[in-house]
Amino acid sequence: MGERYIKLTIRYDGSGYHGWQSQPGKKTIQQELNRAVSSLVGRKVTVHGASRTDAGVSALGQVGLITINSPIPTENLAKAITDKLPADIAISEAVEVPKGFDLVGAVKSKLYRYSICTGPVRPVLQARHCWHLRAKLDSAAMAQAGKLLLGKKDFKSFAAASDKRQSSVRTVFRCEVIPEGDWTYINVEGDGFLYNMVRNIVGTLVEVGRGKWKPEKIREILDAKDRRAAGPIAPAGGLCLMWVKY
Amino acid sequence: MGERYIKLTIRYDGSGYHGWQSQPGKKTIQQELNRAVSSLVGRKVTVHGASRTDAGVSALGQVGLITINSPIPTENLAKAITDKLPADIAISEAVEVPKGFDLVGAVKSKLYRYSICTGPVRPVLQARHCWHLRAKLDSAAMAQAGKLLLGKKDFKSFAAASDKRQSSVRTVFRCEVIPEGDWTYINVEGDGFLYNMVRNIVGTLVEVGRGKWKPEKIREILDAKDRRAAGPIAPAGGLCLMWVKY
Repeated sequence: MGERYIKLTIRYDGSGYHGWQSQPGKKTIQQELNRAVSSLVGRKVTVHGASRTDAGVSALGQVGLITINSPIPTENLAKAITDKLPADIAISEAVEVPKGFDLVGAVKSKLYRYSICTGPVRPVLQARHCWHLRAKLDSAAMAQAGKLLLGKKDFKSFAAASDKRQSSVRTVFRCEVIPEGDWTYINVEGDGFLYNMVRNIVGTLVEVGRGKWKPEKIREILDAKDRRAAGPIAPAGGLCLMWVKY
Repeated sequence: MGERYIKLTIRYDGSGYHGWQSQPGKKTIQQELNRAVSSLVGRKVTVHGASRTDAGVSALGQVGLITINSPIPTENLAKAITDKLPADIAISEAVEVPKGFDLVGAVKSKLYRYSICTGPVRPVLQARHCWHLRAKLDSAAMAQAGKLLLGKKDFKSFAAASDKRQSSVRTVFRCEVIPEGDWTYINVEGDGFLYNMVRNIVGTLVEVGRGKWKPEKIREILDAKDRRAAGPIAPAGGLCLMWVKY
């Protein structure tokens, strides 16, 4: 049997991990996946990821790629790998892709969801997966601000100062603010994101929601092309990678 | 200022704790609460609980009782104690009750909810708070079985063999089975529960849901008055104490 290229859809609770990427001496998602797949197929396999999610960030639709030559049928792979993973990581789908599948370059868009709880009491069962703010948020103002982020723009003001990628131009297709009782969800879809970009957008929208800034402030922040112009970064726990489209 | 008696409504994610009750050398909910309240009021306080939830069991409406003589206004207590607690425990309400309030004896009923996920993929974000079963469950049959548990009955077959309480007669007011997509919730309300009773009821209903037993089997199990007649115990993580009524 020759080499097969398998695209995995991966979900994880990131709250107990130092992010996606393998790092010596740290517990990471990639490391757990490498270990599980390698043990299943009997040789050292690296699981490549479409997104390098940060420490504490979760995923319901991360995408991974592996090269294997094991005879295990593709339709059995998701369950077989999941059975070797800890309870906070699982594979929801495994499909064969052609050789040369470009895991990072072929991404059309990604959706991140950020969850904020504004209820008076800490939501203990979701505490690891949300930002608990005792503030009242004006979600209409936040939605208005979110609209000003749509389109192809230079998002330098929303990137971590440490982001050294050449271009800070990205396209944001969607930036929705959805209030649901004590919860506010922010969905951000784009063709790619700078380091910390979604969390910096969320922190900025929250400043608008609290009434500190008017929605129009977004224009000024974008124009500044300076991280210091935007709001504070939102905590990692509230962020979840929902899907990656090709 | 004299002694005040304060009833606390408490919520916690029990997945990281060895249950409610303080035990030397183990991390427990009660111990965290004792520490937080004592540090707030500046003297050693014990938080008494209405239910001794087991290791891994969560609560959204546990009830506690404290005696304090601190001048902190009652309406500020919930937030002040919560601020001294870890992220997985919180106080949702604090109200003054008269001296002699009978925390355990005056309970009229308690509701426990049990969460089962039957989706094909492990629900990683809720993994600590559910039982993930890859089986299809016949929730109508389970509901029918649940009805046979209603009323004042001897629940000896559903009690841990180690339960040494004199009487195993309890009244179950409600035993609902609620299917919702990939999830099945079981709500059990009673005037009190034997040790492991709700988890043994759930384990038994699941045997019915899987088709191993007919709903009528419940009668036979009750009549046996023997733990071995009922189904296996359901895992602790899926159980949550929703409220306690007085």
